[in-house]
Amino acid sequence: MYYVSESVVQQTVSQEQVTAAVEHAYTAYATGDAVNFPVVRETLDYADAIFGFKSGFDKSGPVLGVKAGGLWPGNRAKGLANHQSTICLFDAETGSPHALVRGTYLTALRTAAASALSIRHLAKNDAERLGIVGAGGQSEYQIRAALSEREFRTIRIADHNRDQAGQLKQQLDDIDGELIIVDPETMAKESDVIITVTPSREPILKADWIQPGTHLACMGADTKGKHEVDVEIVSNASVFGDDPAQAVTIGEKD
Amino acid sequence: MYYVSESVVQQTVSQEQVTAAVEHAYTAYATGDAVNFPVVRETLDYADAIFGFKSGFDKSGPVLGVKAGGLWPGNRAKGLANHQSTICLFDAETGSPHALVRGTYLTALRTAAASALSIRHLAKNDAERLGIVGAGGQSEYQIRAALSEREFRTIRIADHNRDQAGQLKQQLDDIDGELIIVDPETMAKESDVIITVTPSREPILKADWIQPGTHLACMGADTKGKHEVDVEIVSNASVFGDDPAQAVTIGEKD
Repeated sequence: MYYVSESVVQQTVSQEQVTAAVEHAYTAYATGDAVNFPVVRETLDYADAIFGFKSGFDKSGPVLGVKAGGLWPGNRAKGLANHQSTICLFDAETGSPHALVRGTYLTALRTAAASALSIRHLAKNDAERLGIVGAGGQSEYQIRAALSEREFRTIRIADHNRDQAGQLKQQLDDIDGELIIVDPETMAKESDVIITVTPSREPILKADWIQPGTHLACMGADTKGKHEVDVEIVSNASVFGDDPAQAVTIGEKD
Repeated sequence: MYYVSESVVQQTVSQEQVTAAVEHAYTAYATGDAVNFPVVRETLDYADAIFGFKSGFDKSGPVLGVKAGGLWPGNRAKGLANHQSTICLFDAETGSPHALVRGTYLTALRTAAASALSIRHLAKNDAERLGIVGAGGQSEYQIRAALSEREFRTIRIADHNRDQAGQLKQQLDDIDGELIIVDPETMAKESDVIITVTPSREPILKADWIQPGTHLACMGADTKGKHEVDVEIVSNASVFGDDPAQAVTIGEKD
């Protein structure tokens, strides 16, 4: 039985490894080798927390596991991440557990892998202008992973909280490419690839801001009621979902 | 972070402790302090396994946890229990995990606690004759826990597999009270308290075998499609369920 702490995960796992693993899992899911089990996601009515489980099985591994955790909004004040998650992996041959892996950092990398893979396979090859709406804790991961997929020369950051946008810019001061803080409209009009990664419950991006051929990676709407982009954007776009059944129930436009 | 192995659980946890904990949890559930989250239970299409999760939160603890595991029918041949389960407990204040506890033995005690508590609170005080249908791995626990609740003088064991019934009788040769192997009809007609603990998908007990005032603890029907007792028994009885919503969807008579 292994226990892998957050610090061991941070020291040993790279974004590239996670992106490759997520690509493998998406392929296994698309070919029917992997399944997702129903998602459990519940308000706890305690500590303002949302708690739940995501689980699945990839026969091609075989890999059987569950990720348990959720959102504890009071954690930041205690010096902890608001998103907490823990992965338990089982031996698919016997059902006995073989590892408990802290999943908060892995979840950040996994979420970044999802938009990076969408850029790898779906964005224009000559995309040069990256835009992001949302400058929260996840945004740095999304941008760094995206930079591995295309040679972005400019990165436009939009967030209603300008301080947070400034902080994100500072965190990224080692990267090539120009970082520009703008409003959502300018970001949307001047980007070839747009990542949305906010907790918004109202559309932030309007349909007529989006230029033809733009690739949007919509990451934020992971719960019923969340909503980042105009319905018209979704209905005009070619839509790709990693898990269509799940996207229909808890994705954009509930 | 604690890891508690099966052998540590077996050395440190008693049936009495588990029965008391389950009674506390039922009370918390009945008063609204505790909730169950939706049950996930899926066939794995691998190793003939059934896998899933049961999870819940007891605010009065607070105790937040998930039990993951299921049934791996090929395990016995490998020297492992067919039922595998693992409990992950979380800090309800922050969502971080604090213990991983192997749950196979605990599940056996918990299941025994459920029928023992039903006997404690619902069976006739002067019940002397215990009956059980099903002599599988769980039956010894059910009988030992029941013996703490009433002074049973006779224990009638029914199982279509006579060898298994004989084995169970041997396992229990230290107890007070006479052990008698009988057919289900005789067991039902000559028992004040009946425990059903089989994987049956067809009713085993007929309504006209059951004497007035008999207490039935129906443990086996934990999945859609399982069925141990005549529909008429259920419709004639005063029915008590620990979790009515769950009992209606995955209990007796689907």
